[in-house]
Amino acid sequence: MQRPSAQRDKLPAPSSPLDHLSAVLERDMRQVNERILKCMESDVPLIPQLARYLIAAGGKRIRPLLTLAGAAIYGAPMPKTYPLAAAVEFIHTATLLHDDVVDESAERRGQKAANLIFGNKASVLVGDYLFSKSFQLMVECDSLEVLAILSDAAAVIAQGEVKQLTTSNNIETSLPAYLDVVRSKTAALFAASCQIGPVLTEADEKQVQAMRDYGMKIGIAFQIVDDMLDYTADSKILGKEIGDDFKEGKMTAPVIFAVENADVRERSFWQRTIEEKIIAEGDFEAALELMERHDALKKSRILAETYIAEARQAASVIPEHPLRETLSDLADFILTRTH
Amino acid sequence: MQRPSAQRDKLPAPSSPLDHLSAVLERDMRQVNERILKCMESDVPLIPQLARYLIAAGGKRIRPLLTLAGAAIYGAPMPKTYPLAAAVEFIHTATLLHDDVVDESAERRGQKAANLIFGNKASVLVGDYLFSKSFQLMVECDSLEVLAILSDAAAVIAQGEVKQLTTSNNIETSLPAYLDVVRSKTAALFAASCQIGPVLTEADEKQVQAMRDYGMKIGIAFQIVDDMLDYTADSKILGKEIGDDFKEGKMTAPVIFAVENADVRERSFWQRTIEEKIIAEGDFEAALELMERHDALKKSRILAETYIAEARQAASVIPEHPLRETLSDLADFILTRTH
Repeated sequence: MQRPSAQRDKLPAPSSPLDHLSAVLERDMRQVNERILKCMESDVPLIPQLARYLIAAGGKRIRPLLTLAGAAIYGAPMPKTYPLAAAVEFIHTATLLHDDVVDESAERRGQKAANLIFGNKASVLVGDYLFSKSFQLMVECDSLEVLAILSDAAAVIAQGEVKQLTTSNNIETSLPAYLDVVRSKTAALFAASCQIGPVLTEADEKQVQAMRDYGMKIGIAFQIVDDMLDYTADSKILGKEIGDDFKEGKMTAPVIFAVENADVRERSFWQRTIEEKIIAEGDFEAALELMERHDALKKSRILAETYIAEARQAASVIPEHPLRETLSDLADFILTRTH
Repeated sequence: MQRPSAQRDKLPAPSSPLDHLSAVLERDMRQVNERILKCMESDVPLIPQLARYLIAAGGKRIRPLLTLAGAAIYGAPMPKTYPLAAAVEFIHTATLLHDDVVDESAERRGQKAANLIFGNKASVLVGDYLFSKSFQLMVECDSLEVLAILSDAAAVIAQGEVKQLTTSNNIETSLPAYLDVVRSKTAALFAASCQIGPVLTEADEKQVQAMRDYGMKIGIAFQIVDDMLDYTADSKILGKEIGDDFKEGKMTAPVIFAVENADVRERSFWQRTIEEKIIAEGDFEAALELMERHDALKKSRILAETYIAEARQAASVIPEHPLRETLSDLADFILTRTH
């Protein structure tokens, strides 16, 4: 397997492919952001307060950018995609809000998690509001095919979140079971975001599939890297505490690779921490040491690289367009994420 | 105002209009139930477990029955409405699940609330799953107009739920503010359910409006009666604890009417219980006594009756059909609810 270029120099380039995408699509993205802000308007003050807190907090807007990029590459009417790009971001944001509730996370995007400030009640209900708003936005686009893609994605995400509950705190969770969760809870929305452009322009099935594959593969890699960052990141750069997954007993790639080769004593460590959630001081560092011993983080990175290579291959099927190269570079860039 | 007939004899008739509706639409309803069960199938066992627990637990299925009745009256192709009727029930069920989480309710439909058995996590996420499934079902119907109606309703419901958060624990909440919440969180889905039939058959605007009004008005009355039952019902018949709203400091019609005429001492009682949620033994009985003193429950009933009268008037616009009478009777029947 060829080593992706971004792997060679670990420092993110001063202008990343994501920045490039944002710059090229700036005018369109401004329209999307306007739609997002408009949809958060409500005579119930709590809704804009909470939504703005979360959405204005930034985030990379990677999903709506993918929707816009796909639309630009396939020549879809851009204004038609604005509500769809906004819808995709809303689905993502609603998921974050509900994730924070259920995970009892303490931080998100460098700020206190919304549920700690506004309460669980508000997080669940405003999440529902954003979710339903995303459907209102979708309906605007007048395409039942796109509606089917996005509503399918929403169902798959929800199913993935439930699946994750059943793999958490169970060290028997296999790599395929983990990847199944990742595909559902994260990659499905990336795939749907990428598909919208070719579907709107009635591109042939091969093209739709290529964009879908591209989105699916970078989505999987994105989540694997995310799961690695929860063990390795600088929490200041990451914008949230590290070690959250460990505390919650989530079975992610690094843990799975460490458990895979664990001896009896190590297994009992994972049983106590991940399954019984009995965590003492120094346990997080001990977990990191076990991961080091079994090359668990290296293996996770190789796994992510495999998907990125597949994403680049899918991207090679996309028609020639200046943004095709950017999508290809974006795939590599995902491996260099530090937050 | 003419007194509705069902008011005269307070005992529910041996065969209620709801039973009649179920009997007439039995064959169609069976198809709807099949769709509901099929949608709950999943390779994630927790989903059918939790959904079945809730959906199989019964419930009156009043919303899907209204959808089917509307379709039958306006001559819509019945099979086309099955996924829509199922979608409406799913939206309702998802709302219940999220309500139970946020309200920390102890019982629902005579059983322990789902969140107490399966955990808050599962309730939020399975709620999301049902909600997204409802959109998949809607997309099947191929009608963007119906999709718009149902996605609008979903957004209004979510907004109403958030609004309710902001009126809770605030004894200054006015009757119009309460009715605004009721319209959003409950009546909007009744209205949408009723509208589907005439919209699918492209009935004229007056007809669509009549069905919408009918649904909206019975929905408002339904919720007012619900809020009364939380103070007056026999908890065994109701299938959940009474006094939940009081404990949570919800501002519903009976409290609003009692607060309206409260003297200084009474106001401080409501401030302590509803606003500060400091509730001692005997407080619930004291609240009932204050409601009695100020005719708060009587006033609530009269308010519900007003909406039922309006619903009957709206129903009179509906074309002649055997089920038109049933809808009219159903309006009265809502006033006699004991659970």
